Amino acid sequence: MEMDFTALAQAVDVGWILLGAALVFFMQAGFAMVETGFTRAKNAGNIIMKNLMDFSLGTPIFWFIGFGIMFGGTGKLIGGLDLFTNAGGDWATMIFQTVFCATAATIVSGAMAERTKFSAYCIYSMIISAVVYPISGHWIWGGGWLAQLGFHDFAGSTAVHMVGGVAAFIGAAILGPRIGKYGKDGKARAIPGHSLTLGALGVFILWFCWFGFNGCSTVALTGGAAETAARVFVTTNLAAAVATVTVMCITWVRYKKPDVSMTLNGSLAGLVAITAGCDMVTPAGAAIIGIIAGFVVVFGIEFIDQVVKVDDPVGAVGVHGLCGATGTILTGIFAYYSGNEITKEGLIYGGGAHMLLIQLLGVAAVIAWVTVTMFIVFTLLKKTIGLRVSPAEEIMGLDKPEHGLTSAYADFAPVVSVLGTAAGEAQAEAAAAPETAAAAVPVTRVTSENPAAMHKVVVICKQSRFEALKNAMNAIGVTGMTLTNVAGCGVQKGAAEYYRGVPVDVQLLPKIKLEIVVSKVSVEDVVEAARKALYTGHIGDGKIFVYDVADVVKVRTGERGYDALQGEE
Amino acid sequence: MEMDFTALAQAVDVGWILLGAALVFFMQAGFAMVETGFTRAKNAGNIIMKNLMDFSLGTPIFWFIGFGIMFGGTGKLIGGLDLFTNAGGDWATMIFQTVFCATAATIVSGAMAERTKFSAYCIYSMIISAVVYPISGHWIWGGGWLAQLGFHDFAGSTAVHMVGGVAAFIGAAILGPRIGKYGKDGKARAIPGHSLTLGALGVFILWFCWFGFNGCSTVALTGGAAETAARVFVTTNLAAAVATVTVMCITWVRYKKPDVSMTLNGSLAGLVAITAGCDMVTPAGAAIIGIIAGFVVVFGIEFIDQVVKVDDPVGAVGVHGLCGATGTILTGIFAYYSGNEITKEGLIYGGGAHMLLIQLLGVAAVIAWVTVTMFIVFTLLKKTIGLRVSPAEEIMGLDKPEHGLTSAYADFAPVVSVLGTAAGEAQAEAAAAPETAAAAVPVTRVTSENPAAMHKVVVICKQSRFEALKNAMNAIGVTGMTLTNVAGCGVQKGAAEYYRGVPVDVQLLPKIKLEIVVSKVSVEDVVEAARKALYTGHIGDGKIFVYDVADVVKVRTGERGYDALQGEE
Amino acid sequence: MEMDFTALAQAVDVGWILLGAALVFFMQAGFAMVETGFTRAKNAGNIIMKNLMDFSLGTPIFWFIGFGIMFGGTGKLIGGLDLFTNAGGDWATMIFQTVFCATAATIVSGAMAERTKFSAYCIYSMIISAVVYPISGHWIWGGGWLAQLGFHDFAGSTAVHMVGGVAAFIGAAILGPRIGKYGKDGKARAIPGHSLTLGALGVFILWFCWFGFNGCSTVALTGGAAETAARVFVTTNLAAAVATVTVMCITWVRYKKPDVSMTLNGSLAGLVAITAGCDMVTPAGAAIIGIIAGFVVVFGIEFIDQVVKVDDPVGAVGVHGLCGATGTILTGIFAYYSGNEITKEGLIYGGGAHMLLIQLLGVAAVIAWVTVTMFIVFTLLKKTIGLRVSPAEEIMGLDKPEHGLTSAYADFAPVVSVLGTAAGEAQAEAAAAPETAAAAVPVTRVTSENPAAMHKVVVICKQSRFEALKNAMNAIGVTGMTLTNVAGCGVQKGAAEYYRGVPVDVQLLPKIKLEIVVSKVSVEDVVEAARKALYTGHIGDGKIFVYDVADVVKVRTGERGYDALQGEE
Repeated sequence: MEMDFTALAQAVDVGWILLGAALVFFMQAGFAMVETGFTRAKNAGNIIMKNLMDFSLGTPIFWFIGFGIMFGGTGKLIGGLDLFTNAGGDWATMIFQTVFCATAATIVSGAMAERTKFSAYCIYSMIISAVVYPISGHWIWGGGWLAQLGFHDFAGSTAVHMVGGVAAFIGAAILGPRIGKYGKDGKARAIPGHSLTLGALGVFILWFCWFGFNGCSTVALTGGAAETAARVFVTTNLAAAVATVTVMCITWVRYKKPDVSMTLNGSLAGLVAITAGCDMVTPAGAAIIGIIAGFVVVFGIEFIDQVVKVDDPVGAVGVHGLCGATGTILTGIFAYYSGNEITKEGLIYGGGAHMLLIQLLGVAAVIAWVTVTMFIVFTLLKKTIGLRVSPAEEIMGLDKPEHGLTSAYADFAPVVSVLGTAAGEAQAEAAAAPETAAAAVPVTRVTSENPAAMHKVVVICKQSRFEALKNAMNAIGVTGMTLTNVAGCGVQKGAAEYYRGVPVDVQLLPKIKLEIVVSKVSVEDVVEAARKALYTGHIGDGKIFVYDVADVVKVRTGERGYDALQGEE
Repeated sequence: MEMDFTALAQAVDVGWILLGAALVFFMQAGFAMVETGFTRAKNAGNIIMKNLMDFSLGTPIFWFIGFGIMFGGTGKLIGGLDLFTNAGGDWATMIFQTVFCATAATIVSGAMAERTKFSAYCIYSMIISAVVYPISGHWIWGGGWLAQLGFHDFAGSTAVHMVGGVAAFIGAAILGPRIGKYGKDGKARAIPGHSLTLGALGVFILWFCWFGFNGCSTVALTGGAAETAARVFVTTNLAAAVATVTVMCITWVRYKKPDVSMTLNGSLAGLVAITAGCDMVTPAGAAIIGIIAGFVVVFGIEFIDQVVKVDDPVGAVGVHGLCGATGTILTGIFAYYSGNEITKEGLIYGGGAHMLLIQLLGVAAVIAWVTVTMFIVFTLLKKTIGLRVSPAEEIMGLDKPEHGLTSAYADFAPVVSVLGTAAGEAQAEAAAAPETAAAAVPVTRVTSENPAAMHKVVVICKQSRFEALKNAMNAIGVTGMTLTNVAGCGVQKGAAEYYRGVPVDVQLLPKIKLEIVVSKVSVEDVVEAARKALYTGHIGDGKIFVYDVADVVKVRTGERGYDALQGEE
Repeated sequence: MEMDFTALAQAVDVGWILLGAALVFFMQAGFAMVETGFTRAKNAGNIIMKNLMDFSLGTPIFWFIGFGIMFGGTGKLIGGLDLFTNAGGDWATMIFQTVFCATAATIVSGAMAERTKFSAYCIYSMIISAVVYPISGHWIWGGGWLAQLGFHDFAGSTAVHMVGGVAAFIGAAILGPRIGKYGKDGKARAIPGHSLTLGALGVFILWFCWFGFNGCSTVALTGGAAETAARVFVTTNLAAAVATVTVMCITWVRYKKPDVSMTLNGSLAGLVAITAGCDMVTPAGAAIIGIIAGFVVVFGIEFIDQVVKVDDPVGAVGVHGLCGATGTILTGIFAYYSGNEITKEGLIYGGGAHMLLIQLLGVAAVIAWVTVTMFIVFTLLKKTIGLRVSPAEEIMGLDKPEHGLTSAYADFAPVVSVLGTAAGEAQAEAAAAPETAAAAVPVTRVTSENPAAMHKVVVICKQSRFEALKNAMNAIGVTGMTLTNVAGCGVQKGAAEYYRGVPVDVQLLPKIKLEIVVSKVSVEDVVEAARKALYTGHIGDGKIFVYDVADVVKVRTGERGYDALQGEE
């Protein structure tokens, strides 16, 4: 047989790396599902597209220039120029590094979800893949100054996740919060995701792929690497599981009930945190890192959301940024193994503060690097092509204005959800409407009313006006209303949207129907209040219909007519 | 080169085990999707959470104590104590066994779905991972008495699936059926799942991962194991495919049409059944096992559902319990290989009944063990913290009372489905309402009616009252009704729910609007019947509105007015 | 140690093949999600079932006869007979080839979605797995005439994808387009898919699995194959990424906005195209192939959809057929490596036209083979058991008539979507209705009308009648209408449907409520026009209700009464 022993060992190692590459690629599916599931249906197409494109743009860009910057030399600060690299024929390393790069890029999309211009996102993702990630990556993995100092980041708590998390923070901060995220009182409001099932699927996919992300980062199975890889599997899984349990317990105590979406974040927090030191810590160390990550992610997300008031829809900053930093630093405390040797470098094992300080230095340096560069990138984008869609586009959802997609879920009706998520958006739109304008068009009172008579007033208007209309009704003493999601039937004017190159035929527009039965409050007051709330002067302001009501019965009390409409239901 | 040949072979074997561990972990995603997809949307968050937590609790518990019980010694009945195991440094075995343990635990969640208290489920899953699974696992795989007898369960038809399936049966039996599952006549009713698409995705994920579950259970590639593993891939795939075809044919004959969700169960049935003997049987043997599994799962699920009347929403008992036992026993009939040798131990090949009897003994012993222990566990849980949520919580769906989650699908309106799934629940709620109470509050008839006049009566009430209201209308001769899902607009009282630590603003409550146009039946009769059906005396009983109708036309006949409202539509 | 070096190398190679087999199996999940997501919710169960069954039927059939035809001999045209093969004990090859065969079969289901009889599909998928795929597969991979000529199709651009794509084209052409796909003007209309999220998940799954499809097609890691496999990973990923970017750019230019679903097709186009030559081309070659595939898929899908007018709901013909052929041919242009040697066989590297011509010959031969055989198969099916469901079944969606499944999404209301997708179907149904029949039943005008009075006319009818009704209203000058999705409440007659063997209780039927308020147009005209549009003479034609309206206000102008109903909204 011609092949020698070394070649066989190399083949085994390459197989291991390729398995890892496939798994790390599949993380894109996990991120796409988490980010889509945790945000609203009206942006689902946009979020998917961003996840698809950051990978698809990042791959050729990293091939073109990023790989060279990261690995094309051993300078302290930067690798080299190796345009259209072939990685010196080391194809396995080339694909493995490409998929890692894409992971860093994709983290950002979640934090910037539901309001970022698609074109700006495409440019951002090319820049992070071309320059930002490769340079700090070179410091850590490409033989740069941090590597030379002995900074340890096994599979990328810092090099991948914290880079993504810090970029996410800068991006979300410069973008500003989604309309409706913070109330007039400045308090954060919940904007629930549209499919926790898909979000959970995404977390399971990510956890699965993390075995490749961490385990295959031995980039070998032979020469003792298999033992390390197996230990990495154990510590990775244990940290994730313990972080999940920790978050469940924290939310159970703080929010009275175990919170599903935060607990899912907890799994990711544990995975991110263990990534730096998964090869160095014991199972016990992994469990402790998991516990700490659990606390960091819950309080970190709350802090960012409620105190810093940076709106990060999926918790990417808390998960990847904070837990990435935490895990990297904790490696300096819990390091026990080096390869398969017991070296006890960590602070807790008496290894001194040396390693810990280097870990801290590395974290600080990468934070500084990413903060400065991404601040410049996002600011330039904001000043040139613009970083954010218009408020009208944001309220409509990005699928339609950005991609011509009426809905990612064409067979399911768009609704004013029973959750108050649209409230803030409606407020914003209401605030924009010229309230006094309505007064300019006098309404003639033509109905002579019998004070004892009951009438039903039906308002048909745009979904986004619901909140304004409801507030106007409350203001005049109307509290009982019934809302129905309906469709207005008319011919759409203006430019057609395309779906797969074919014009889409939109004949129905989503509307709401608000029904109010009044007796004490006069019909005229209702009509006037509704008009004021709805009036903009543009076509589509809606119509108000008045009907006579023969009778009303309140089931609980048996009261009829006028009496049935008074008091608590 | 330092590394020797043995070390290289070991590295290859470890790589194979780790691949298997990752795949078996990913089965959690498959189970989560199957269980969520086959149940109702209102419990989706809870089911996901249970799947996430049984793994996340099971992992540290198995590390803490379970692994030691299973593998920490060669006693006949129990392994040993090896707290916070490091598996003697055999990290690959440690992670591989951990993910297998979690699979057993997660099977139970499907059978107990839609009604189990979350806290009780967490405790159950810790106990099965700590003790129940490890002890029978020790008998089979840890060198215990069954292993010593030669009991063969290659990848866990009995050790994993039947343990889960029997625990599922005991749990579901002690819990009792979901409200509405069995009608007053005792007949089973269909409660369709909310997403067959996700359910199917789950089945595909499980099938994919089963190649790791069975194929990597050689725990080696070298020394001839690769050949065995490849044969295991063939038999596993063939049994699954044939079982799927078998179930499709059976349902086509029995239900007139090929049933989608049962056929998906068929794939899992084949996979479970082949698991014990996948290394010993020929492709033909695998195909026959697939056929038998197909029959067992269809008739088994029907038997459990319709005769035993244990309510198992996803068919976990039939799939994992019955097919697990079946497959283990059939190994004694169809065993042909042992490793890569042809030994023909199976009954059908003239190997005698020896192996078959041991297989039967093993199955019986494990059934007994799990039945007794899980009966104790679930009974204790029932008597202490309680095993089941309240009927009101169950009808509402577990997401809200257990996790503070208004909906896992926030952007899609909750509806009274056109399928009659809520019927039984509504009956239960109706039965609980004090029907006579309404009579205590007299309704004054204030409308003088013209017998020929037509009126529209509109009832706005809670979704769960639909069935009661419909029955009341039918009872007085009203058959034509139109139902609309609407939202009642009011301010929610009571404790706020949290979503990721932020209070959720709920302003709209799901309601139904039932419209009835009557002429022959008097408005008063409708109003009285509706009041009786709806009255509980609590706020939220609803309102009834009466309108005059100018005219009615029946399209089919052209009849107008009174006539249009009579007879068939 | 007993094992020798060769055996170790073989074990490693078998492990690699088995990893590939698992990944290629998992493509079934990807296809299922893409095909379901890109089509309508009412067919979701049927599409899943078809994806499940083509694999489950194909597996035993390929074992029974297909494998032998493909690999059981080295004849020029056909392998041999090897019934119930055991692949000469080469189990790894047996499972690897089985999952490839199933991939070819499943491609067709997407193109034939939403209208094919399930029974016909089952028979088709058995025939393609038994004969059609194995014979051309033998030519290419089994030692047949194309293999002997040196035709190069590394992982199956032609052998798998083009075979599936051509069969898809023949099938879709013989079936004819879905009702409503082409308007009366012959123009294609968009029929948006019901879940782009699941469609995207499917694409990510396919991309992930393609690393196994292409990378593991080295069927070895040792002997230099690892290096090839790694290069295959690089070229596969790069071609997919570049094709995705290309399609995004093309759609951005052509449709003004980057189209989500077409871009997802772009990823698959790149993957299909690179499959033939992924082992022979450089990264630059892969990128160029990706660009070309991007153009081919966009213009190819448009051409098939709008010029050839073959209705392929998911773009399978464009993706698998056209890009499969394209990629195979381009291999003759961009071939650079052979194994790990640089041989520069491609036209562009000066290798002459020899290889290119053989590639062209192979593509042409396989197109001819599949076209002829599949034309015969589908024509025979059409003439015997029938290939297509009835128009009524198609409009209803295949889930119910074919599988007794009321909805794959039981908890979500079926709706008349705000997208006009149902329009064409409704036209078809309207066309089928005997329009003159209504005239035969005279309607007596019983309402004496005050010309200035306002009335609300409410029509309750089947969802599928919406378009006809709307057109009838437009024809008499009514433009403002409000549509609500409601449920008609009645007892369903006829045979019960089964869900998992239990009868499903359907009490509510999906209906629409169309509300029209008129003053200028007389109520009688509305009623008559509505009756004509709705009348079929069958039960279920609907009812029309007339109410008095007390007042109307147009918000924008403040006009009231009669005036408020005139002019633009």
